[in-house]
Amino acid sequence: MILLGDLALRLGAIPADKYNAIQIHGIGTPASCREGDVVYAADPANYRLALQSPCAAIIIGEGFEKSAAEKPLLVAPDARLAFITCLEIFAPRAAFDPGISPEASIRAAACIASTAVVMERVSVLDGAAIGERSVLYPGVFIGQDASIGADCILYPNVVIRERCVLGDRVIIHAGTVIGADGFGYVQNPDGSHRKIPQIGNVIIEDDVEIGANSAVDRAACGSTRIGRGTKIDNLVQVAHNVELGRHNILAAQVGIAGSSTTGASCIFGGQAGIVDHCDIPERVTIGPQAGFQRKHTQPGSVYLGSPAIEMEKFRRILSCYLRLPELFGKRDRRRQE
Amino acid sequence: MILLGDLALRLGAIPADKYNAIQIHGIGTPASCREGDVVYAADPANYRLALQSPCAAIIIGEGFEKSAAEKPLLVAPDARLAFITCLEIFAPRAAFDPGISPEASIRAAACIASTAVVMERVSVLDGAAIGERSVLYPGVFIGQDASIGADCILYPNVVIRERCVLGDRVIIHAGTVIGADGFGYVQNPDGSHRKIPQIGNVIIEDDVEIGANSAVDRAACGSTRIGRGTKIDNLVQVAHNVELGRHNILAAQVGIAGSSTTGASCIFGGQAGIVDHCDIPERVTIGPQAGFQRKHTQPGSVYLGSPAIEMEKFRRILSCYLRLPELFGKRDRRRQE
Amino acid sequence: MILLGDLALRLGAIPADKYNAIQIHGIGTPASCREGDVVYAADPANYRLALQSPCAAIIIGEGFEKSAAEKPLLVAPDARLAFITCLEIFAPRAAFDPGISPEASIRAAACIASTAVVMERVSVLDGAAIGERSVLYPGVFIGQDASIGADCILYPNVVIRERCVLGDRVIIHAGTVIGADGFGYVQNPDGSHRKIPQIGNVIIEDDVEIGANSAVDRAACGSTRIGRGTKIDNLVQVAHNVELGRHNILAAQVGIAGSSTTGASCIFGGQAGIVDHCDIPERVTIGPQAGFQRKHTQPGSVYLGSPAIEMEKFRRILSCYLRLPELFGKRDRRRQE
Repeated sequence: MILLGDLALRLGAIPADKYNAIQIHGIGTPASCREGDVVYAADPANYRLALQSPCAAIIIGEGFEKSAAEKPLLVAPDARLAFITCLEIFAPRAAFDPGISPEASIRAAACIASTAVVMERVSVLDGAAIGERSVLYPGVFIGQDASIGADCILYPNVVIRERCVLGDRVIIHAGTVIGADGFGYVQNPDGSHRKIPQIGNVIIEDDVEIGANSAVDRAACGSTRIGRGTKIDNLVQVAHNVELGRHNILAAQVGIAGSSTTGASCIFGGQAGIVDHCDIPERVTIGPQAGFQRKHTQPGSVYLGSPAIEMEKFRRILSCYLRLPELFGKRDRRRQE
Repeated sequence: MILLGDLALRLGAIPADKYNAIQIHGIGTPASCREGDVVYAADPANYRLALQSPCAAIIIGEGFEKSAAEKPLLVAPDARLAFITCLEIFAPRAAFDPGISPEASIRAAACIASTAVVMERVSVLDGAAIGERSVLYPGVFIGQDASIGADCILYPNVVIRERCVLGDRVIIHAGTVIGADGFGYVQNPDGSHRKIPQIGNVIIEDDVEIGANSAVDRAACGSTRIGRGTKIDNLVQVAHNVELGRHNILAAQVGIAGSSTTGASCIFGGQAGIVDHCDIPERVTIGPQAGFQRKHTQPGSVYLGSPAIEMEKFRRILSCYLRLPELFGKRDRRRQE
Repeated sequence: MILLGDLALRLGAIPADKYNAIQIHGIGTPASCREGDVVYAADPANYRLALQSPCAAIIIGEGFEKSAAEKPLLVAPDARLAFITCLEIFAPRAAFDPGISPEASIRAAACIASTAVVMERVSVLDGAAIGERSVLYPGVFIGQDASIGADCILYPNVVIRERCVLGDRVIIHAGTVIGADGFGYVQNPDGSHRKIPQIGNVIIEDDVEIGANSAVDRAACGSTRIGRGTKIDNLVQVAHNVELGRHNILAAQVGIAGSSTTGASCIFGGQAGIVDHCDIPERVTIGPQAGFQRKHTQPGSVYLGSPAIEMEKFRRILSCYLRLPELFGKRDRRRQE
């Protein structure tokens, strides 16, 4: 619980004095909130919904009509940011007692910090290290000589294969696999394939977050690397020897093929695919479902489509593409005449 | 085992009397069946295959040549439906004794129905509830205060994160993750990203089935919702705050981005992608690999392509696209003249 | 450790005699190697990097300038193959003692070879069989009557559902699910769906490798089959009743819809999608992100684009597509005149 006056102060929004003592118990949405909730109205439709809801207060931006409101309003210069701050205030904290569950399987030669939480059914193999305050949920597997930094969260059934390295404050969601063998073969004359051993590892730098059921493959030799602060969504494929720069954003179901690299602050829309051996400079944006296969790219450029084309050119082509029937229609009519 | 006469009655197909006492032991395919199997011939090629196979009887529709057959035929007005009924008759039932495995990890404050099956290596955290006759295979994780209805099946290594709610008769296949954090960040001035807490949950209504290694993210605030009877295939991504209507069909590898909603009876082809904040009305069909990004759509419409275009228009454009070389060829020849 | 002279012999590359006694301790990359490492320089840029690195020796092809090198060079006619042989020489062997962990859950009626390795938290249900020297990592689930051949590796949290069959030397990476129910329903008049029982299985032939978090669904009836020696990458979907031929290559995030078949030596680029009931003959290549939906195809042909078009035709169309603004620009100017 937080008093509305205190909440307003923390959000940089001042409500009328008479409301300051109202108790706020949680945060809801305009469509589904309970008494005592604060809600965020992103647009007029949500604002109307919120006014009719049982909520205790409404966060809005500055352009809204306020006179009719019979509820306390928290008017914030950046209302979305105020909403996010509210989420932070009300976020439930998962609190687990530090220590190793007696139902975990820890090899003798593993090293686990005394403040770490290792839940039941976790396996930590020989030579692996787990840092201070890191939380390993049930079903996590840590391979030989793998290293997990401090303050990491590994959700249920995450797999970290041998010799992979995670920095500090890394979050990996359930089911994701770090360090599976890269996909590399040499074809034999009879059509069969000889497996190329994948003896490298994966290095995940500090503050990376990776979604559920994604896969980051180990390098054939050397390291696959995820740069500091990069955020990866669910069901994403990062192939062997890829090196992602800092603060990249990869939306769900993106695939990055082998040995491609990115600079800082690149953005990949959902289901985009990058072929192998691309070197993508900083601040490049690649749209959803784009198929990127360019070997040279300008920093800061935007690519759309499959095959991916620079945005301005893509838009010109697309507008022509949409008008093709008009062109052919005229032509076919001329022919008939 | 079932006698052919009895099987014919259940399928609404009457074979000749002389065959009624034949014993049917199972169901096979025309290409791989054993003596005693009934098989289904969907087309003439499969019918020929079935006639030469060791099968005991053949389910066919009404348009087939029957005089040459030396095997009993089960002629059904809807032969495919008769085949499906056969599958139901012969489907092996997985029978597990109710109860909690001594190798499961159940927190004290969890509530598990006495008729539920909780196999080894299942974790059920505090406050979670498991309904009557639900089956939790090994490696399943049920987070704090999560709730599983009656008659659900959660296959191995399914993860249900905290506070998520499943209705009755929900089937979730192995490796799928329900309730991982939505993918939400605010960019800081230095290019790094601040995580937006994802404090909502996922609500999965009755009779939903979700395939293997899919992911349904929890809402930032409020609920991500999968409507009653909706069926989702493998490797599908459903982002935070999505609300799918009733009886939707999502084929494999579909991705639905944040806050999009669908009406009842929508169909999504494999690998289709939907951008965020789309409101898709009822009975819309979106083709395989389509990239849907429209904010307004007619109920019952069909969209194809990336970007997705209404089907009739798409077909006209596609037919022009395929004829482009013809157009340019003429033009280039004119130029040269 | 291996002496450089011995290594050169194994690679078919002869360095100068004076270097033969140098000790090689491992294998690195030009960008990140340690003293004692051998590295492979694939191109002049990597060669320069390698010359300045602390590495002990460099594998190169025949066309490089060698006189300036102050390090031993291993010049090989096929330098990449020599590098792969090096990876094989230095690949660490995961050595586990044979036997069944006391923390595994093995049903009484399962049959496990005495030389197999069954690690903690593995479940093997009744009637299942595990072959000689196969390794099951923690969290693996083997369903009733499933059969695993000899010399297989099943990485953590792999799920093999009931009655599925794996041949010898099959490798399945972490999180992959074999034998989940195929996605099959009949629509009822009220819009709801009736599940078609999926009572078949999956057969995976010898020498198949499947990446992480992929899914191969069981057949409705009969078998889904992965042909001998076929290699499948991460996050791939293989639907029910698919039959893949021998020595296919499926890159990451490919999806093959129900009942499609392939001949030997087909190649599928990343994120390619194949609709249901396609019969693809041998040696067909389908490019990345292609959307294949043809019912008849020539052996050895190459398809690109969505919808997929035969390569030569696709290239002609694409080159026109890229020139569309030029065409429309002229046209619009003519109009204005």
